[in-house]
Amino acid sequence: MFSEIETPCLVLDKGILERNAARFLRRASERGVFLRPHLKTSKSVDVAKIATGGRMSGVTVSTLREAEYFARNGFDDILYAVGVTQNKFERIRRISSETGKTILVSTDNLVVAEALIEFATRTGFRFQTVVEVDCGEHRGGLAAGDRELVRIATLLNGSPCLDFQGLMTHAGHSYASDAASEIAKIADAERNAAVDAATAIRDAGAACELVSVGSTPTFLHAPSFDGVTEVRSGVYLFFDLAQFSRNVCTISDIAVSVLATVIGHNRRGRALILDAGALAMSKDVGANDFLPDAHYGYVCDPVSMGRLGSLSIQTVHQEHGSVSVDDDIWFERLPVGSMVRILPNHVCMTAAGGFGKYLVMNDGQIVDEWDRIDGW
Amino acid sequence: MFSEIETPCLVLDKGILERNAARFLRRASERGVFLRPHLKTSKSVDVAKIATGGRMSGVTVSTLREAEYFARNGFDDILYAVGVTQNKFERIRRISSETGKTILVSTDNLVVAEALIEFATRTGFRFQTVVEVDCGEHRGGLAAGDRELVRIATLLNGSPCLDFQGLMTHAGHSYASDAASEIAKIADAERNAAVDAATAIRDAGAACELVSVGSTPTFLHAPSFDGVTEVRSGVYLFFDLAQFSRNVCTISDIAVSVLATVIGHNRRGRALILDAGALAMSKDVGANDFLPDAHYGYVCDPVSMGRLGSLSIQTVHQEHGSVSVDDDIWFERLPVGSMVRILPNHVCMTAAGGFGKYLVMNDGQIVDEWDRIDGW
Repeated sequence: MFSEIETPCLVLDKGILERNAARFLRRASERGVFLRPHLKTSKSVDVAKIATGGRMSGVTVSTLREAEYFARNGFDDILYAVGVTQNKFERIRRISSETGKTILVSTDNLVVAEALIEFATRTGFRFQTVVEVDCGEHRGGLAAGDRELVRIATLLNGSPCLDFQGLMTHAGHSYASDAASEIAKIADAERNAAVDAATAIRDAGAACELVSVGSTPTFLHAPSFDGVTEVRSGVYLFFDLAQFSRNVCTISDIAVSVLATVIGHNRRGRALILDAGALAMSKDVGANDFLPDAHYGYVCDPVSMGRLGSLSIQTVHQEHGSVSVDDDIWFERLPVGSMVRILPNHVCMTAAGGFGKYLVMNDGQIVDEWDRIDGW
Repeated sequence: MFSEIETPCLVLDKGILERNAARFLRRASERGVFLRPHLKTSKSVDVAKIATGGRMSGVTVSTLREAEYFARNGFDDILYAVGVTQNKFERIRRISSETGKTILVSTDNLVVAEALIEFATRTGFRFQTVVEVDCGEHRGGLAAGDRELVRIATLLNGSPCLDFQGLMTHAGHSYASDAASEIAKIADAERNAAVDAATAIRDAGAACELVSVGSTPTFLHAPSFDGVTEVRSGVYLFFDLAQFSRNVCTISDIAVSVLATVIGHNRRGRALILDAGALAMSKDVGANDFLPDAHYGYVCDPVSMGRLGSLSIQTVHQEHGSVSVDDDIWFERLPVGSMVRILPNHVCMTAAGGFGKYLVMNDGQIVDEWDRIDGW
């Protein structure tokens, strides 16, 4: 089936994607919380429509290129979940003005808040804003008890030139554990930080309608969403070995793989050489903390998707991936020119490697090609 | 100067590029060897013209997308230096037929050699071929003394339907050392393997006009090029911290940087947050073996390009880069919204992160934008 296809190539199993999407939408509905899927993993309008159940609004992005692409393709209510800065204001204004779609921007900084008000006042463009809360990852955001957070929220809320919507936080440190009990604790801390911050902001007289949390692990393990209005999981649409290694999914939940060709046999070094290297797979090995044999990805049969022995890509150069073999039988089973599919270590990084599109499969057949939007 | 520029953004210093290119062209001329620059790092027609000194031929690529891009932009004699397979034949035929430009293909495998002959016979398309020799990296290629190598070469040479040009080898393992004497030994082994293989092929009655070697370190340290016809260095055009860490260049030879914005202050965690994360910088940390403080890149003043204290990007998430600071003064010196430029750890990976273009600077001014061609 794949023999004429040029490799490396990103393959997306639509059936698995739909199952993952439906599972999370169902869970959100059961827990009484809005699911605002993060599209930084998929960067695809076709995936987004499945992720939202057809609703053309309420999504999360990590670049303005994504924001622009989704807005121009009809999506509204787009949360840009990376701290905004002054050099990005004009593009946001242009996208919103030209499409009529809303882009929510986030900050944890007083200088930026003042600059947002200044720009809004000067141009008449009405930003929709949230503040970012740090719930323990210590990347972006201010602590729930930080008076600066309330100061920024009330400043934004008090300006007649823009709208203040609420707050967001992200427990990215939930990826550091593979234990459900530990992830549940982090999820609880994520919720508490969000709710405490919302309370502090409301106590200061500002509205705080949006209380947004989320990562894939904490969404699955959170004991409660009381006081939370929405979650922003994203990688669950595709899953990968990093999520599998943390007991967040099974291997059969992984929807994306890289189709690669065996381009050489290194018989002396006992390795198969693939045309999926550092650019196709990425150099992210986050799964390996809990799954050391993941290396740069599991090597699977291209049709059955069963793993081939214990094969994985163990070394990568820019366009070469080397797969160590413990038995010469692999040189017979996988002649040069034959194909394999690789389950990625960290799919957000792999999918962004420059493929530009997905080869979409359903029930074992190639049914479509979907584009994706990388870069900035 | 940069305040209106959206970030992250790939910046190329044209003056440094021209100096690096001229230095290597001069060295090749002095050593009596042809320089066939590897364009997998730059993926840019504008860079290629500088690398070849204006000659529109004799270049190396690592993807067919690059081959197609350079051929359609007028470049001839393009060596595709990654082992070719059957699923790529038709695209090569199409590119060559439509542009009239030559693409040399490489293999180390008998099955592929037979398939090349079968395809050439069936379609009338005349492949230009080389065989790949392993000189110690143990990735692609067959050892100089391997009888299979001679068998493939004579098979290709004997076919009336295609042309056999010679051989290529690559001492990629030269990157594993920072000692000139050690690199010189590897360069010698690279040359010996190439010359021995060429001799064996000629002894078997085949012509072997092309004897192609090359990496940036071995080109600089090789004691001799006797018997070698060309070298294929590439990263020297840009250089990076990985090359600096191996004493192959100075910091002031690095031509490419990532312009980034400070998007947050994590005062409790004592870190600056940048909008250059894992996608903008890549997760390659190859420099760190010899330069542990390189992390994901040195943080520099955007205008002077002097390093800011001992700052580097120490942690990356998809769109966030975290820079630890040892003094709160950095929060004053680099307010949110200010810009920095990052010297990359491994520029081949960083530049391929999805930027799609270079912001070109000369004498401290932005003078142009050049496109680049990522993906496959």
